[in-house]
Amino acid sequence: MAKEKKLVEAITSMDEDFAQWYTDVVKKAELMDYTSVKGCMVIKPAGFALWENIQKQLDERFKKTGVENVYLPIFIPESLLQKEKDHVEGFAPEVAWVTMGGMNPLQERMCVRPTSETLFCDFYKKEVESYRDLPKVYNQWCSVVRWEKETRPFLRSREFLWQEGHTAHATAEEAEERTELMLNVYADFCEEVLAIPVIRGQKTDKEKFAGAEATYTIEALMHDGKALQSGTSHNFGDGFAKAFGIQYTDKENKLQYVHQTSWGMSTRIIGAIIMVHGDNSGLVLPPRVAPVQAMIVPIMQKKEGVLEKAEEIRKALCDTVRVKVDATDKSPGFKFAEQEMRGIPVRIEIGPKDIEAGQAVLVRRDTREKTIVKIDELSEKVPQLLEEIQKDMFERAKAHRDENTHVALNWEEFKNIIEEKQGFIKAMWCGSEDCENAIKEETGATTRCMPFEQEHIADTCVYCGKPAKKMVYFGRAY
Amino acid sequence: MAKEKKLVEAITSMDEDFAQWYTDVVKKAELMDYTSVKGCMVIKPAGFALWENIQKQLDERFKKTGVENVYLPIFIPESLLQKEKDHVEGFAPEVAWVTMGGMNPLQERMCVRPTSETLFCDFYKKEVESYRDLPKVYNQWCSVVRWEKETRPFLRSREFLWQEGHTAHATAEEAEERTELMLNVYADFCEEVLAIPVIRGQKTDKEKFAGAEATYTIEALMHDGKALQSGTSHNFGDGFAKAFGIQYTDKENKLQYVHQTSWGMSTRIIGAIIMVHGDNSGLVLPPRVAPVQAMIVPIMQKKEGVLEKAEEIRKALCDTVRVKVDATDKSPGFKFAEQEMRGIPVRIEIGPKDIEAGQAVLVRRDTREKTIVKIDELSEKVPQLLEEIQKDMFERAKAHRDENTHVALNWEEFKNIIEEKQGFIKAMWCGSEDCENAIKEETGATTRCMPFEQEHIADTCVYCGKPAKKMVYFGRAY
Repeated sequence: MAKEKKLVEAITSMDEDFAQWYTDVVKKAELMDYTSVKGCMVIKPAGFALWENIQKQLDERFKKTGVENVYLPIFIPESLLQKEKDHVEGFAPEVAWVTMGGMNPLQERMCVRPTSETLFCDFYKKEVESYRDLPKVYNQWCSVVRWEKETRPFLRSREFLWQEGHTAHATAEEAEERTELMLNVYADFCEEVLAIPVIRGQKTDKEKFAGAEATYTIEALMHDGKALQSGTSHNFGDGFAKAFGIQYTDKENKLQYVHQTSWGMSTRIIGAIIMVHGDNSGLVLPPRVAPVQAMIVPIMQKKEGVLEKAEEIRKALCDTVRVKVDATDKSPGFKFAEQEMRGIPVRIEIGPKDIEAGQAVLVRRDTREKTIVKIDELSEKVPQLLEEIQKDMFERAKAHRDENTHVALNWEEFKNIIEEKQGFIKAMWCGSEDCENAIKEETGATTRCMPFEQEHIADTCVYCGKPAKKMVYFGRAY
Repeated sequence: MAKEKKLVEAITSMDEDFAQWYTDVVKKAELMDYTSVKGCMVIKPAGFALWENIQKQLDERFKKTGVENVYLPIFIPESLLQKEKDHVEGFAPEVAWVTMGGMNPLQERMCVRPTSETLFCDFYKKEVESYRDLPKVYNQWCSVVRWEKETRPFLRSREFLWQEGHTAHATAEEAEERTELMLNVYADFCEEVLAIPVIRGQKTDKEKFAGAEATYTIEALMHDGKALQSGTSHNFGDGFAKAFGIQYTDKENKLQYVHQTSWGMSTRIIGAIIMVHGDNSGLVLPPRVAPVQAMIVPIMQKKEGVLEKAEEIRKALCDTVRVKVDATDKSPGFKFAEQEMRGIPVRIEIGPKDIEAGQAVLVRRDTREKTIVKIDELSEKVPQLLEEIQKDMFERAKAHRDENTHVALNWEEFKNIIEEKQGFIKAMWCGSEDCENAIKEETGATTRCMPFEQEHIADTCVYCGKPAKKMVYFGRAY
């Protein structure tokens, strides 16, 4: 009973304190735990199973576009990290340095990879000789380390899991095509699997990746109205190739530099799932990514035949649905609360009276709506219901985002929106970093992206009033 | 043509120089490459696809026994590593130390995990309160770092990939059961999937894992007669629990220490696949783990209809076989050599004459045997052939091991075998570490394991002549 109380009482309301609600959910839904290693977390079975489902589905989508997986070293020698000027400036201040191997100091210190552009360049320099060796479209799933000062579970930690794709192409056009392709893979994955609507666009120069010519991003809106960068794809042009000397001989036997890209999505996206879909009872998982899609809860399970029937239903469903029976000795009420906390999309209640009537009760996690369904129709109805939930969750998230996307035609409006509302602000921008900095300084809002779908909402920059170049999404962000 | 030559000429005969043959194969089959990071390697697409197939099938077998995946930090603070005396002595001399985070020296240095017993203990100490919280049966897939002085691709490198399972149980019996269960999972996986026969047994105290009460191992024999430890499972008893204070209250409300196990298999097993099955033409992959099981090679592919037919065959097979068409502009002879080097189990040749006759030529990689098969029977015959190859490869490896397993009744015989033959030596042992050391000193052979299937082949220790306690497998090892 002590544990039962703990679970149900401890969650803070999201309207009261969103940050505390978030921390409560990641802990109570048993996604992660803190460790003795400052800024690093344990990803617990419920959290890791979620990551495995993300990995599996994203990896399949990658492979359909010709991506091959590889594994590169965890360490980067300092001299290698320093080869590309912008890149080292961006990353050197936040890496962990290995200075001793066994009992001996190293001749050259090495950092634990914060990202692997430099290692892939070193590798491609050896691998690529002729146009026949191109393109290289490689990806790795690994952990990376960035020495963050302030950390939050999944959103910002000193170590996190991700995938990083790194490609080399013969032409600038091919590199650009791959950069856009991978951004679209991320966007489609978020929308179709995670039920998270995203804005696709380009980062400003100020916000782009260290060493990139262009960074494309998908931006999602969390329930509290803050934005989360959810995946990025970078076009490096031939900048890294020149710094590392990656050349190939083309069909005319001339030496050419390769054109490169990189793109990544991380465990951060778990934070987005929580903050887009969660509610005051805990996590709400989109069915396509939920490790358990339906939990069967036997009612009065000690009565003869109840557990047997629950097991029978499980077997009938298990080929098409990720389904389990909760046969623990907890009370049904506790089980309901627990599975709501964990975000399991559908609950199937089955008790002696239901069995007698040849039916079961389906309860949706997202709306709590109950339906009574004939037992022999479950294998048809449960997958249908899961698809319906998936669709509704996306529509609800999209409606929330659209309601919280505002247009500011001038600085007065911009400031009013920031003070009174939350969410994205669409506004025109002159392209100057000074305006970008001033807007951030005065409101805390940053340029999230210049969306690919541009709208001409005004002629002048929302801040300085000079002629506008781009429509930009602004927002406070995680 | 330059590259064609390179591929075919460069491989050393295994009888001439096995070590060089091995290095040639890992490079020419494009499994890995060396990097600027000393002792660390790149695992290239062909090598990583092999690892992915190992991971997938091993992970499925784990999950069937109730294993759940988690992820723990990459770093271990020095004070945590030091909590268990034997363990720190075993590992501290060979770890990489992080001493700087960003621009600042760390207050306490941390090592990159060489293995994660200490982190799991720290985690379980928080997680486990009551008998209801047990057992914990967790596993993680990750990379680990050990500062080795001499390295060889896959067999010994400063960084390698592995899985490490860590469990906590209420009783000693349960821990013992889990230790044996996981060893059997490894053994069955090696025999059924990798076609590698293994000896199951226990390590001597000298050879057991730092901090373990008992280490179980599977030992395989390579083609050159050297042994390779291929997977281990450790029973820690309550040693770590006492060092870390991991206690639970039992049903009588009394405080008890948990009993723990750990078990691991690494990318080293790729070395075993190469050295058990490979031949002088390169890699030979067991069908169940081969990333590509059958390669279709069109003959005179520019002739009308050839590539179309090849593609038609691919489509007919692709639901049951991992199959590809090699439609590159290389010559058929070069393609044959290349796919032999890469170890692809079956080659399907299809040319204009074959098409006319409604047939294709199947060539086995392992025996090079050719069969002519009607095109419309391929979807039946190819999977059959793959199963046959899998079975034959296991039988051949087992016959090789049995032929190279010798019995030594006394020291004279032992020395003769070591001088004149290669392989395992079965001999009786008194149980003293002095004899173990002396045997190693004089012959280079170590105790590989005390097999679970004991035989009484003599009454006295092969070295000292005192009463024998155990039959032991000896061998020179990687």
